[in-house]
Amino acid sequence: MEQSFLAYLKGRTRSLLQVDVGIGDDAAVIRSPAWPLVACTDQIIDGVDFAFDEHDLADVGYKAMAINLSDIAAMGAVATSALVTLTLPKQNATKVAGEVYEGIIEAAKQYDVAIAGGDLSTYDGPLAISITVLGHVAEGQPWLRSGALEGDVVLASGSFGGSILGRHLRPTPRLELAAAIGKLATVHAAIDVSDGLSLDLDRMCASSGYGVELDVDAIPVHPDAIKLSAKTGREPFQHAWSDGEDFELLLSVSPEDAERLLAADLPAPLTAIGKIVGRTGLWRKHEGKFLRLSPQGYLHGE
Amino acid sequence: MEQSFLAYLKGRTRSLLQVDVGIGDDAAVIRSPAWPLVACTDQIIDGVDFAFDEHDLADVGYKAMAINLSDIAAMGAVATSALVTLTLPKQNATKVAGEVYEGIIEAAKQYDVAIAGGDLSTYDGPLAISITVLGHVAEGQPWLRSGALEGDVVLASGSFGGSILGRHLRPTPRLELAAAIGKLATVHAAIDVSDGLSLDLDRMCASSGYGVELDVDAIPVHPDAIKLSAKTGREPFQHAWSDGEDFELLLSVSPEDAERLLAADLPAPLTAIGKIVGRTGLWRKHEGKFLRLSPQGYLHGE
Repeated sequence: MEQSFLAYLKGRTRSLLQVDVGIGDDAAVIRSPAWPLVACTDQIIDGVDFAFDEHDLADVGYKAMAINLSDIAAMGAVATSALVTLTLPKQNATKVAGEVYEGIIEAAKQYDVAIAGGDLSTYDGPLAISITVLGHVAEGQPWLRSGALEGDVVLASGSFGGSILGRHLRPTPRLELAAAIGKLATVHAAIDVSDGLSLDLDRMCASSGYGVELDVDAIPVHPDAIKLSAKTGREPFQHAWSDGEDFELLLSVSPEDAERLLAADLPAPLTAIGKIVGRTGLWRKHEGKFLRLSPQGYLHGE
Repeated sequence: MEQSFLAYLKGRTRSLLQVDVGIGDDAAVIRSPAWPLVACTDQIIDGVDFAFDEHDLADVGYKAMAINLSDIAAMGAVATSALVTLTLPKQNATKVAGEVYEGIIEAAKQYDVAIAGGDLSTYDGPLAISITVLGHVAEGQPWLRSGALEGDVVLASGSFGGSILGRHLRPTPRLELAAAIGKLATVHAAIDVSDGLSLDLDRMCASSGYGVELDVDAIPVHPDAIKLSAKTGREPFQHAWSDGEDFELLLSVSPEDAERLLAADLPAPLTAIGKIVGRTGLWRKHEGKFLRLSPQGYLHGE
């Protein structure tokens, strides 16, 4: 099945400029306009991250690309090319591969990413999609999780919670926003929210060796969190705090840069949700006292 | 399991110079000394490419790296870093991951490749290892399959056949040889032999729009092919012709470059096995007539 599907793919994935040699040789040859190179890889698996029988396979393919593109955005980088590995159940393998690729190609076109290569196998197991995305940092330095400084303002893009109602399958990787921010400000630290706002914020702060004092009421709650709370009986805020798969960005910047960014016309809204403080952990001030908040979210394999 | 295993890994995979940021951020940040970038990805799966119960898992991890490094060698490139995705059966996932990584890290150290990142999942399915290797072309152009010219000499490294007796688990990616050849000659086309000498040679010729006239008696037959023939009753040559997983290089170079390479002291032996001709296909001359040979080997999923 591999040879004929690769021929089909070669036709579908028109090569972009940055890929000299795409599918069909031993490796892809990629020219990129700048250093350093940024690379990430993330897989999603039937029965773990999605349900084959419930979800549209094109959505699943789209999501597999989008979650990787979100990681590239969280580095302040530009995505250029992707290598796609499909592990396919034997039954209807070609049909399944075609459906998954519809979504992969859609996301690739939308975000100007070339499919530079990949691998295909059939086996006795569930559908798994593993994608590696390559990119580069166009200007300045890559945004690490570890660079937040005391006194920084924490900004969040978009809003949070209830992504399970459907948004999680077609997330918007914040590549365009990241590019706009990179032109206006020096980002000290960044992370994308995959496992939960509070959990990923805690990771960024812990990597940086600091904590955060949150303005809890400022955290933007998505309408889906409110919808979902009607079903679950939990507060909408709880969903925003811990649901995850929002694929929004959390950024740590100086107060001056925060001011500039909040006043700018950007491709997605930004909200100031707290400031970086010396004591590690997540905190809120309540009647003059610091209360510690516990991060919640999705811990892989736990 | 992911967080604690990543911490272990971070300790084990000492970062090499070319990786600024490795495991633990949203993406890896890689500096490479030269353009263009070369990238390939290949996965191996229990029940398809190896047998969990029969094979040492460190060998399996080593192989997963080596087959990708072989692809990088076949591009005439230098390997710099790898992203490793493990899909693990739930039972003993951490133990299995640790054993597989022993082999991955061994190969990475041996060939000076940094583990820049990856992904880990557990699921109800067989062990699968998917690796993306990044590299760059140090001098000249990448070696494609498609550049062979009429009159070129086809050179083969090492010898062929019977790899299933054990060599296939610990193949030697010809990175060192490729680097040495790149300094001495202009390689017009190259491929590594994964699916069978004749099949991969046919692919290189077909990509180039030419055929090859083989000096069949010159094809180097590995001692393992002779050993295996005693069991199978097939001719040793048949094993060399079609077994595959030799991970040797086939190269198409000018007669002058062939002469220079054959006279040089290289890290692995080279043998001239034929010349590129205008008529497509694989041929041998016998008593003044051209006889067509049919390529044989392993066709994925067929």
